[in-house]
Order: sequence, then C-alpha cells, then structure tokens
Amino acid sequence: MTERLSLDALNAMNADDFAAALDGIFEHAPWVAMSAHAGHPFATVTALHEGLMAAVRARPAEDQIAFVSAHPDLAGKAARAGEIAPASVSEQAGLGLERLSIEEFARFERLNAAYRARFGFPFVVCVRRLTRDAVLDAFERRLANDRETELAAALTEIGYITRLRLVEKVDGPGMPHVAGRLSTHVLDTHGGCPAEHVRVELFEVGRSGRVLLTEVHTDADGRPHRLMMGGGPLRIGTYELVFHIGDHFRAHGLELPEQPFLDVVPIRFGISDPEGHYHVPLVATPWSYSTYRGS
Amino acid sequence: MTERLSLDALNAMNADDFAAALDGIFEHAPWVAMSAHAGHPFATVTALHEGLMAAVRARPAEDQIAFVSAHPDLAGKAARAGEIAPASVSEQAGLGLERLSIEEFARFERLNAAYRARFGFPFVVCVRRLTRDAVLDAFERRLANDRETELAAALTEIGYITRLRLVEKVDGPGMPHVAGRLSTHVLDTHGGCPAEHVRVELFEVGRSGRVLLTEVHTDADGRPHRLMMGGGPLRIGTYELVFHIGDHFRAHGLELPEQPFLDVVPIRFGISDPEGHYHVPLVATPWSYSTYRGS
Amino acid sequence: MTERLSLDALNAMNADDFAAALDGIFEHAPWVAMSAHAGHPFATVTALHEGLMAAVRARPAEDQIAFVSAHPDLAGKAARAGEIAPASVSEQAGLGLERLSIEEFARFERLNAAYRARFGFPFVVCVRRLTRDAVLDAFERRLANDRETELAAALTEIGYITRLRLVEKVDGPGMPHVAGRLSTHVLDTHGGCPAEHVRVELFEVGRSGRVLLTEVHTDADGRPHRLMMGGGPLRIGTYELVFHIGDHFRAHGLELPEQPFLDVVPIRFGISDPEGHYHVPLVATPWSYSTYRGS
Amino acid sequence: MTERLSLDALNAMNADDFAAALDGIFEHAPWVAMSAHAGHPFATVTALHEGLMAAVRARPAEDQIAFVSAHPDLAGKAARAGEIAPASVSEQAGLGLERLSIEEFARFERLNAAYRARFGFPFVVCVRRLTRDAVLDAFERRLANDRETELAAALTEIGYITRLRLVEKVDGPGMPHVAGRLSTHVLDTHGGCPAEHVRVELFEVGRSGRVLLTEVHTDADGRPHRLMMGGGPLRIGTYELVFHIGDHFRAHGLELPEQPFLDVVPIRFGISDPEGHYHVPLVATPWSYSTYRGS
Repeated sequence: MTERLSLDALNAMNADDFAAALDGIFEHAPWVAMSAHAGHPFATVTALHEGLMAAVRARPAEDQIAFVSAHPDLAGKAARAGEIAPASVSEQAGLGLERLSIEEFARFERLNAAYRARFGFPFVVCVRRLTRDAVLDAFERRLANDRETELAAALTEIGYITRLRLVEKVDGPGMPHVAGRLSTHVLDTHGGCPAEHVRVELFEVGRSGRVLLTEVHTDADGRPHRLMMGGGPLRIGTYELVFHIGDHFRAHGLELPEQPFLDVVPIRFGISDPEGHYHVPLVATPWSYSTYRGS
Repeated sequence: MTERLSLDALNAMNADDFAAALDGIFEHAPWVAMSAHAGHPFATVTALHEGLMAAVRARPAEDQIAFVSAHPDLAGKAARAGEIAPASVSEQAGLGLERLSIEEFARFERLNAAYRARFGFPFVVCVRRLTRDAVLDAFERRLANDRETELAAALTEIGYITRLRLVEKVDGPGMPHVAGRLSTHVLDTHGGCPAEHVRVELFEVGRSGRVLLTEVHTDADGRPHRLMMGGGPLRIGTYELVFHIGDHFRAHGLELPEQPFLDVVPIRFGISDPEGHYHVPLVATPWSYSTYRGS
Repeated sequence: MTERLSLDALNAMNADDFAAALDGIFEHAPWVAMSAHAGHPFATVTALHEGLMAAVRARPAEDQIAFVSAHPDLAGKAARAGEIAPASVSEQAGLGLERLSIEEFARFERLNAAYRARFGFPFVVCVRRLTRDAVLDAFERRLANDRETELAAALTEIGYITRLRLVEKVDGPGMPHVAGRLSTHVLDTHGGCPAEHVRVELFEVGRSGRVLLTEVHTDADGRPHRLMMGGGPLRIGTYELVFHIGDHFRAHGLELPEQPFLDVVPIRFGISDPEGHYHVPLVATPWSYSTYRGS
Repeated sequence: MTERLSLDALNAMNADDFAAALDGIFEHAPWVAMSAHAGHPFATVTALHEGLMAAVRARPAEDQIAFVSAHPDLAGKAARAGEIAPASVSEQAGLGLERLSIEEFARFERLNAAYRARFGFPFVVCVRRLTRDAVLDAFERRLANDRETELAAALTEIGYITRLRLVEKVDGPGMPHVAGRLSTHVLDTHGGCPAEHVRVELFEVGRSGRVLLTEVHTDADGRPHRLMMGGGPLRIGTYELVFHIGDHFRAHGLELPEQPFLDVVPIRFGISDPEGHYHVPLVATPWSYSTYRGS
C-alpha cells in the first residue's frame, strides 16, 4: 500500500487540489470531488465519503446515469486494458472473472446484453463484496428491478466501490468500517477443553464446485492460528468450514471405530454481510456437535 | 422372497435332507450342514447358524482354507457367471463392483493378486455390509494380517454372508439380528415444534464422489415419511444427510437474507456397525444447529 | 373408575334418561343435557361434549351467569361439604387448596371478594389443569377482564371441567383429548449411547418452594422406566427436571474432580398446554449439555 | 492494598532484613525466611515462594508438625482475636465461619476434635479457595488420610495460604498465578445475535441453601457488564448461573405463553480449580438451550 493522504491535509486543500488528490476514486468524474469540496472540512473519513456520495445523489437522474455509464461492463468486451480505471482491473481480477468457463462467459454476456437493453447503462457491482456465484445471482435479481430502483442499486454499489478506494487512499479519524471477519473456535466437550491442533479447511462453495480458500490449525485455545478470512470485506456467498475432529480425538487416545461416527465435520454457511463478523464455532464430541452464529 | 422353510421342519429332517435344504448357504460345502446336523434340534435360527459355523470352525486349518478357497475372487477374472453360487451374484451387484472405473478395477486386481500371493486363498468379504470404499479399505487392512488372523477374518465374513442367506431361507423363533436402521428427526427450535415437510437427502460419500441414495421429506412429527436405509444390514462407510432447512424457515414466513446463514445443512457421519440403529437428528434454528448419535 | 356408560346407550335414551345419566357433569343444571338432547345421536364423545356446551352458550347472558353462579367459590366459605357437587371436592383437593398457608388463604379470600364484587359471580377454574400458583396468577389476570370477556373465560373453564367429567363417565368413539404427557430422554454423548440408570427427579416449582412430584430412573434406552406425569391433563405451571448425571459418568469409570463441572443438572421449564406432549431431553457430557422442546 | 515491596529490594536484603520484610507470611515462623534466604537472589516471585516452601519441606517431620501446630484451629475456641495472625482473621471472615449455624458450629467442633485426636495438629486449609461446604467436605475427607499424607496436605494448604499473602506483599516479575475467573456469554440463536440486557444472577449453592453472590446484565456482545467472580482465587464449590431469558425474548417482541417453556434458566456447575478460567455460556432460543465449559 502506498502512503496515504491525511484527512487533515485534504481538508486544507482548495477545490482543485482536493479533486486532484481524490482522482481515481470516482471514475471519470472529477466533478464529484469538486462539488463535495463545499462541505469541507470533514470531521471523519466516513463523513468525507458521505459528502462525496451526497454530491452524486444531488444530481438529476440523467447525470447519474451518465456517471454510472462511465463505468466499464463487468465482463464485457469493454474490459480491455486502457478503457478501465486502473483500480477496477485488480478488483475484477479478485473475483476470477478472467477465469470464467465458456458457459459462464456466455451467461455473463447474455446478462450484460439484457441489462444494457433494459436499463441503458452498464451493470455495476462491487465485486470485492461478492463471490462469482453471488455476482451472477445479483445480476439476475437486479434485472427484475424497475429503472429507478436499479439506478439507486447501482449508486449503492458505487458507494461500496468508492468507500474501499477511499480507505486505501486517505487516512484519518472515523475510518469507514469496510472489513468483515470470519472466526471459529473448536471446543472438545469430551475432554472439557479447547481442541488444539485441529485442521480446519475453508472452502468457497459454488454452483460449479468447491474451492479451498485456506487451511488453518487451531491453537491451544482452540482458535485458528491466523485469520482465515477478513481484513477487507468478506464476499457474499456460501462457504464450508471443514473440521478434522476425528484426527483430534484419535490423537487424544480415543479408540474410534475404523469408520468413526464423526470424522470430518463440514459446516456450510452463508455470508450476507461483507462487513460483518461471522463467528462459527464447533462444539464437539466423537458423537455430537453443535454450531451457531456466535460473536 | 420365496417361501421360507420353518425351523421346525428343518429340525425334523434327517442329515441328508437337512443338508439338501440348506444347500447354497455354504458354497460348495454340503459337509457343513451334514456335520452340524448332529447338534439338532436347534431352539432358534440363531442357534442353527451358530451350529453351522461351529462345524466350520471345528475343522483343521487346511480344511478351512480349502473351504474359503471355494469362494470366488471378489472382482477377479473368476467373477464370470456360472462359476459363482447364484446368491453371490446379486450380493456383489449391490456393491456396484460391475461399475468399477478402470483405475478401481486395476486396484482391485492388484489387491487380489497381492492377497492371493500372501495367503493362498481368495479375499472373502460380506459385500452387503460395506460400501465399495469400505471394501477397498478392508482389503488393504487385511493384507497386513498374519495368515492365522486372516483366516479367522475370512471365516467371520463367511459367518456374515451365510447368516444373511439363512434368514432368507429359514423362518423360526430367535432370528439373527441382521438389519440395521438409519433414522432422523428434524426439530425446529426457532418455532418450538417438529419441522414438517423438510427435504432430506441421503448420500453415500466415497473417495470418487457423492452418490444420492435416497430423498425423503419429514412428516408432521419431523420424521422421514419412510425408511431411508435399513431392512437389511447397513453398509460400513461414510454418508451425508443433507437437510434443506432454509426452505423450511422461509416457508414459515421468516425473512432470511438472500444468502441465509444456514440453508442446506450437511451432516457427514460414518457407519461402522451394519446391524446397528443410527439415529442422526437435526435440532436447528436459522442460526444454529446440533446433531448427535441418538437412539 | 366405575363402569362407564357407552355413547350408544346414551344416544338411545330419551331426554329425561339422557339428563339423568349425565347428572353431575353440569352442576345443578339438568337443563343443559335436556336441551342438548335435541342434537342426538352424537357421532363421537367429543361431539356430545360440544353439544352440551353449545346448549350453555345458546342461553342469554343472564342465564349463563346464573349457571356459573351455581358453582362454589374456589376457596371461600362456601367450600363446605354438602354445598359442592361431589366431583368438585376431589378436584379441588388435588390442588392442595386445603393446605393453603394463612397468607395464601387470606390472598384467596381477598381475590374472591374482589372478583365477586366486580363480576357478581364466583371465580370458576378447572383446577386440575393448573398448579396452585397458576390458579392465583389466573385469578389476578382475570380480575382485569371486562364482564363479557370474563363470562366467556368462566364458560371455557366449565368446558374443561365438564370435559374431564364426561370422559370419566362416558365411553365411545372420538373421546376428547384430555391427557397431556411429560417425557424425557437422556443421551450420553461422551460415550455415544443412551444413558441408563440415571436418576431423574421432577419438581413443581412454586413461589413458596419446590415440591418433589416423582422420581424415576432411565432404562437401557435412556428413557424413564415409567410415566412421570400424564394420563390426565398436566397442570399449567413451572417445573424442574433434575438429572443426576455426575453419578452416571462416575459409574462409567470417568474420573471427575471432587467437585465435577456438571453433577446434578436442573432443567426448569413451563407447561402452558395441559393437553400437550412435553418432551424435554438431556443430551450431556461431563462438560456440556443441551435440552430442547422435542417431540 | 498497601505499597508492595519489590522483588529487587528483597533480593538486596541480608537475611535478617529479608525475614523481617516477609514477617506475617509464614505465621510464627521467621526461620522459614531466614533459611530460604540462602537461595537468593530469586529470579521471580514464584521462585521466591517455591524457595520459602522448600525451606519448610526440608525440615524433619516433627519440625513441620510444630510449624503446622502454630496455626489456629479453623473454627475452634482458639479463634479469639489476638491469638491469630492478623491476615488469618480476614481470610476466615470471607468464608462466613463467624455466621455458622449452631448445628454447623457443632459439626466443626466435632470434626476439629476428631482431627486433633487423630493427627495431633490443627486442621489447616486455605479458606479463600473453598466455599463453607467445600471446607466441611475437605475436613471429612482429610480425616481419612494417614498422618504422612495429611501432613503433606496441610503443607500444600499452607503453600496456597502463603502464596496469596506473598502476592499481596511482594511485586516483581513472574508473579504466581493465583486468580481464577468466571465468565459467561449469552447468545440468542432465535435472533442470531448476542443477547443484550439479559439479567444473570450468580448463586453459591450450599447444603443449607442458595446465596446470591452477584447479579449482572449482559452488554451488546452478550457478555457480563462486569466481572462476576475472579481477581483472586475462585472458591471450590457448587454454583448456579440463572439467566432471565424469558424477559429477553419478550422484550424482543416474541409472544410467549403465560407460562413460557423457558423463562428463567438455571445452570448449575462446580468449580474445582480455584485458579482456573470457567467460561459457562448460554446458547438459547425460547425452546432450547445449551451450555458447555468453554474457554
């Protein structure tokens, strides 16, 4: 991460410098920062972002549509280098859209075309907050919106996109809350203690299969030895935590049958709030387990 | 099922008739029944089976080996029609050995060859009590036995095989317990009542994938509308019950997010006792669940 | 229980005999049966009871009030032998009203007086469906009703009272459902099996203390060796099941500390539906337990 | 708490000053510190305490007995002011021994007399680590020891007593771990969030009744707004956490029956490790709950 600007420094700038400093956050729209400058100084980075979005929302619908239209198609032909603002490139890469299968690419193209035909502006979504499947679901769902609702939805997404860009560029008090977190905890209620050294895998579960995202083991307190997912927004989607508790109980001297009742325990759960904290513990014996959304 | 012989009728027979009546239970070995006849009358069908097995066990090792050797290779070249006793054909078909992939067939052949080389008699296993993966696991594991232990293991398996054949052929008091059972129960502790109309799928989980075995829905008491697995022995192996509880909660008017925390809940468990009762309930809310080996 | 009349026999009677046969079910009100007789024959005992209550409900309010007024005060001075219909005596004894403390008696008297002053008819409640505390709670709560609501409440209670009397007097198809049931089940998820020989106590929990109602032990399936509560209506109130699971785990060779984490587990629960089935299981290890309203 | 001595300062003292500085930790036995001084300097406060105890354990049994004998009877006639070292007074007051009932006092006297007759020295126990009932239990249990085992038990208790005195008097690196902790956490799996504003009472459960120790409510994360028990050693004994979850669910708009299935949930648990962390969470809906020893 490059050095970030301080909020104080931004607050001290005139409109032109202010807009120049925030260039790249709102794609092809320096007028957003120019207009928001009137509200300076901003007490918090959150207030700065709200001021920028308020400048967008204050415009008439036709201007907002022109603004939205300056964003590239998500997976369309326009996705050639040079036509997209640099930040967009890495964000879309994170989703793996460049690795779409032929069928998925065709589906994206179809949805894109239908969306364009219906609304006249490109489909905008903050791809860092969704899995590939969730992007497709959102695409289908939003196609059913009326134009006014959909324009609002597009602006909401631009709010998410620009908020992420802003926190990477500006530092100061009252940073927007953009990071979610996944945590777990393994308790062995056969032994009455945290379960140490348990292997835990995290998978993304998609229509076309499961992908291993990471693998951790638990520490002496039964918690992952490092963060499994977080730091930035989580992706709306379906996941599986897979706990190798059979190995744990065998390692503690329990004689389990060749085919233990519980061995590898999958917990499938959905994430709908990318900025939320998902605590998904496992409380287990060789014969039982429970889980819940904890805190 | 054809008409079964009564134990009374068997008890009234002379040795020749007795052996003829039990023909096909112990493959190519009428001497087993001839020898066991000395112990008649048998008070229960279980005692009859024990008498038959005792006759086998009373023989010297070389006779037992010859007896075991009369059984066909599990998946080998010998598995051609005509060389196997008829009952063996349908039992092996149940396992799906005829649908082995090329790799699996090669592995079976290798294991068979190694087994023959080590022990000098064919690998015998009661295939109705194991999934295909469990057969392979048993094959590997038993290859490590010494000859005496392995001969005992083979006879134990013949005990399982013949017990199943016997209960299909003979009726009477004290039938051997050969049937396991899988049951479940879905409780909705959000609403405080059994969860009705929940779709529950049962999969066999193997190395090469999951296969749907059956699908049921729950009745007003939260229990499957029909038996999922049972009636005969269960197969040692790994399974998954998959509960569609998200649909249940939505159907009861709960507003769940687009991506609910819990939607499709898999419970993976192992069966090690084919004649046992496995009760695997789900106690769930939209935010938590637990399971255990019940009764 | 004395011999019961058959519904067929009742259906064959003329109005006078019918009313004579049902004498004592509706106190001091032979006109109820006389009037209901018009609806005969009754297909079920439930229909018969509904017919009787419909006859009451068809009357103008003043008649209903006179009818209610013929019932004795619950704990008042009128509760002298001879003034109450015989069935009322044993029903009120079941509640233990004759063992009221001086303070409780004073409270009953006060409530009775306030009730009489407010409504002009006595407080009627089906005491077999409530604990003493629940009677007092209902008394307070109903004092806040308006007269019309309270008259309906009194008739509802007379419905419960007479339904219980009817099932003791008449036999036939379609008996009203008057029996609740409490059950439990103890599962040991440390050992993976039902917990046998566990001592389970059942207490009624009242404002003035806990009273032991019964004590059972669990059988090989982890269930009480006999019914703990049921057969007739349960009493609305608060209860505690107390499970001696520390003894169970010690008996299975577990070395627990002098002061085990779990030893005697109380589960406090309320009953609000006297005719319902309350299944209150315990799923426990020495370090954890869960319970839920099961089925 | 008065200013504590630094370990550095102690390490710099000669034997006389060292013994004077530690006066009052080992009652009437300045020789303990004099003798331990030989091992200085001590790297940690824990090592200092071990050095002091090692000086006691190095003595012949008759000296140890004389040392133990200098301790006052726990509840005997000797417990008059002036005869006990000041620190003993407040420690014994904490237990409430001065509020013994006549029966309990008689039992203490009887146990004291039997103990004296059997062992010839007074019963010593670190009363800050036990509830009154646990003291009585320990008294009975230790009466069954042989003399050698019991002398070792008495020294172990003096180790606990002096360790607590030492951490109040001396500060420095490597402080002995003398503080246990009780924590809880209330999760509402009906709503899928921590349960805020839940009243939680903590009781000590003794033979002669329950005593309320403290009452807290949960914060926005479902945790007590302040420490319930801890800071020093917990007391070995039996406790109940009582959770008022019915109020919580009603406050969130759930319509519960007059007599809810779950309203006030008691969780009874034992503490056997005074320096341990006991985490006793409640995961609840209106129809279910679970608890476990967490971490």
